[in-house]
Amino acid sequence: MGGQVLVLNTGSSSIKYRLIDMATRTGVAGGLVERIGEDESALVHDGVRVERRVADHEEGLKAVLAAFAEHGPSLDGVTALGHRVVHGGSRFVTPVLIDDAVERAIEEIAPLAPLHNPANLEGIRVARRAFPGLPHVAVFDTAFHGTIPPHAHTYAVPREWTRKLGVRRYGFHGTSTAYVSRRAAALLGRPYGEVNSIVLHLGNGASATAVRGGRSVDTSMGITPLAGLVMGTRSGDVDPALPAYLARVAGMGLGDVDTALNKESGLLGMCGANDMREVWRLADAGDEDARLALDVYGYRVRAYVGAYYAALGHVDAVVFTGGVGENSARVRALATAGLTRLGIEVDPARNTAESAEARAISPEGAEVTVLVVPTNEELEIAEQTAACLEEG
Amino acid sequence: MGGQVLVLNTGSSSIKYRLIDMATRTGVAGGLVERIGEDESALVHDGVRVERRVADHEEGLKAVLAAFAEHGPSLDGVTALGHRVVHGGSRFVTPVLIDDAVERAIEEIAPLAPLHNPANLEGIRVARRAFPGLPHVAVFDTAFHGTIPPHAHTYAVPREWTRKLGVRRYGFHGTSTAYVSRRAAALLGRPYGEVNSIVLHLGNGASATAVRGGRSVDTSMGITPLAGLVMGTRSGDVDPALPAYLARVAGMGLGDVDTALNKESGLLGMCGANDMREVWRLADAGDEDARLALDVYGYRVRAYVGAYYAALGHVDAVVFTGGVGENSARVRALATAGLTRLGIEVDPARNTAESAEARAISPEGAEVTVLVVPTNEELEIAEQTAACLEEG
Ligand SMILES: Nc1ncnc2c1ncn2[C@@H]1O[C@H](COP(=O)(O)OP(=O)(O)O)[C@@H](O)[C@H]1O
Ligand SMILES: Nc1ncnc2c1ncn2[C@@H]1O[C@H](COP(=O)(O)OP(=O)(O)O)[C@@H](O)[C@H]1O
Repeated sequence: MGGQVLVLNTGSSSIKYRLIDMATRTGVAGGLVERIGEDESALVHDGVRVERRVADHEEGLKAVLAAFAEHGPSLDGVTALGHRVVHGGSRFVTPVLIDDAVERAIEEIAPLAPLHNPANLEGIRVARRAFPGLPHVAVFDTAFHGTIPPHAHTYAVPREWTRKLGVRRYGFHGTSTAYVSRRAAALLGRPYGEVNSIVLHLGNGASATAVRGGRSVDTSMGITPLAGLVMGTRSGDVDPALPAYLARVAGMGLGDVDTALNKESGLLGMCGANDMREVWRLADAGDEDARLALDVYGYRVRAYVGAYYAALGHVDAVVFTGGVGENSARVRALATAGLTRLGIEVDPARNTAESAEARAISPEGAEVTVLVVPTNEELEIAEQTAACLEEG
Repeated sequence: MGGQVLVLNTGSSSIKYRLIDMATRTGVAGGLVERIGEDESALVHDGVRVERRVADHEEGLKAVLAAFAEHGPSLDGVTALGHRVVHGGSRFVTPVLIDDAVERAIEEIAPLAPLHNPANLEGIRVARRAFPGLPHVAVFDTAFHGTIPPHAHTYAVPREWTRKLGVRRYGFHGTSTAYVSRRAAALLGRPYGEVNSIVLHLGNGASATAVRGGRSVDTSMGITPLAGLVMGTRSGDVDPALPAYLARVAGMGLGDVDTALNKESGLLGMCGANDMREVWRLADAGDEDARLALDVYGYRVRAYVGAYYAALGHVDAVVFTGGVGENSARVRALATAGLTRLGIEVDPARNTAESAEARAISPEGAEVTVLVVPTNEELEIAEQTAACLEEG
């Protein structure tokens, strides 16, 4: 497919967008509408900030189109729109051309992602009205994990919950993980279908995924994005009896516990800071809680690497991505410490060399190639959108 | 210490007991009082069953003493009593000579183990009245895990929960794990302090523990025994947002979810049977739920082996114990499948050879020795009791 794809990522109070040129595989423009519905809402288009009262997503998208008209580039070359949708449930494991039935299905899945899917859907609705003549494709953040086999996606809970209530591991960060695992195979110079990798997407949210021959076979997030690794404000794994324990000893309600586990836990809960740069600053200044938070964070990553090593049997690449994974050499060192017996280690000089490019940081000739690969979810959504339209 | 130790394991409606001779390190008699407080309560002493109405633990212990008096052996050689206590909290990380202050401390820890500690304490109280002249030692099931370092016992939750509410990984099965990891070192012919092992205690409850140089450095159970591996009726790890999800989509209460995760999940939840023998029978008869339950069970064990391999850096032994671990060659095969790159494999003939002895089941010369070691918690409690009295 030639032309350009306009990628939209709509949150409850924001619209992120990027125009991708498919011939060159590059973003030619992009921006963000923030704080929709608030007085201080604003649009940043290609770095230019426009304060502007935006009441709802409909107005937000109009503001985006106005910014393109005023500042360029032209949208005349757009041949399709790609929409990020967080949760595809068990139903959507590939990108799908959106029609009214698909909209309804995304709505039905909303209980699985009550904070995200309704906002994603609102973005789809206003964009379909704005671009009624173009195809719109939904790309699901769960979809890449549709290949996880039953032994890894089934929880050991009453089977009625699994069958009737949709309780299973879904996983998230799928678009990013698909992108970087494909890039990793290219960097190794090997066919994607032959490479086993462990992808560590470490950002505000964080996940680990085991990829066997290009297919996700396990991932650390679960029915929601709370499970797994330590994150900025999310706990990751804890004893599932914790909510009941806190109800018993402190009279806490389930809602309070769930909010605390999602918003006041992780790095923030352990040391008061959720931005990884700030956590390091605190630790370097001697803050023991910050030091412990880093140790817990690194240990949990290593444990998942070991678990997925066992799941995969052999591993060709460990891939770091996301804001933390791409930028923090010290986190990468922590996350791979003590794993030499698994063939996993980083070369200190390579690891700390400044670069914004995809690159190997393991020693020459290492059994497992450790890579840093900047993620690009918008490009991946554009490519999946194009592929969906070509196939379908 | 010479003489004999009477080991008591008191549950809410039961008293298990075993008389251990310290010179020969063998059990010379033992039995069980069951269904205390019910009409069908009964005492089985050294295999002889006596139906007898037992109203409470006080009467239960009297019945035990009467059985010793009537059927023998004599209790005249008893020099100490050892009591199993499930939860020692952060306070008790070694066995302790019981006095009134210790009793009060065990009572204070009860919110951590509301089903177990009060019953353990009741057993201690009646036994101290029955044997006022002898030392009583409490041996805690959590104590062996007191060496787990902060990066592995700290949850990524608000630090107030950790500091004020006792929220941390405690771990259980410590007495069994201490016993079999020590036996494993002896079987390898190496000093305990130099051996790294992964202990898989697979019974109705199930746990994995990473032991570095004789000290627990991580374990799969958490603040309660719900976390970690798949068990007979317990889920093990699930997304900690599951209770909130079930409240949202099915209106379930926290208590209902917690009960279901503890009593109606695990193998039972997935396939309707919680006894491992029955699960295999169903699977062999073609039941797909049972086959899936086994696959989930085995996969989860392998994932913990990998995670603890990463935590330990190198591993000398993988040790199977507990009713399932000691008896099910097929579970052992499932739990080690695909781990050859980690140096872990079982020899099919050795694995399936019938034996009640501690034994190696890995191939000759394997990098990691895979062992089956029958556990003996009563002997371990007796030995820890004796050691506590000698030191103290
Ligand atoms: N140079 C850096 N060193 C350490 N952490 C960094 C650096 N740059 C960005 N980060 C961290 O990346 C995280 C955000 O990652 P990102 O992938 O953008 O988040 P999201 O999950 O919201 O997409 C923040 O915690 C930030 O501190
Ligand atoms: N031959 C066997 N094959 C498979 N499982 C067995 C066998 N013998 C006992 N088991 C299983 O062991 C489990 C009980 O283990 P045990 O360690 O006694 O439990 P607990 O955790 O209560 O101490 C049961 O699930 C039982 O089916």
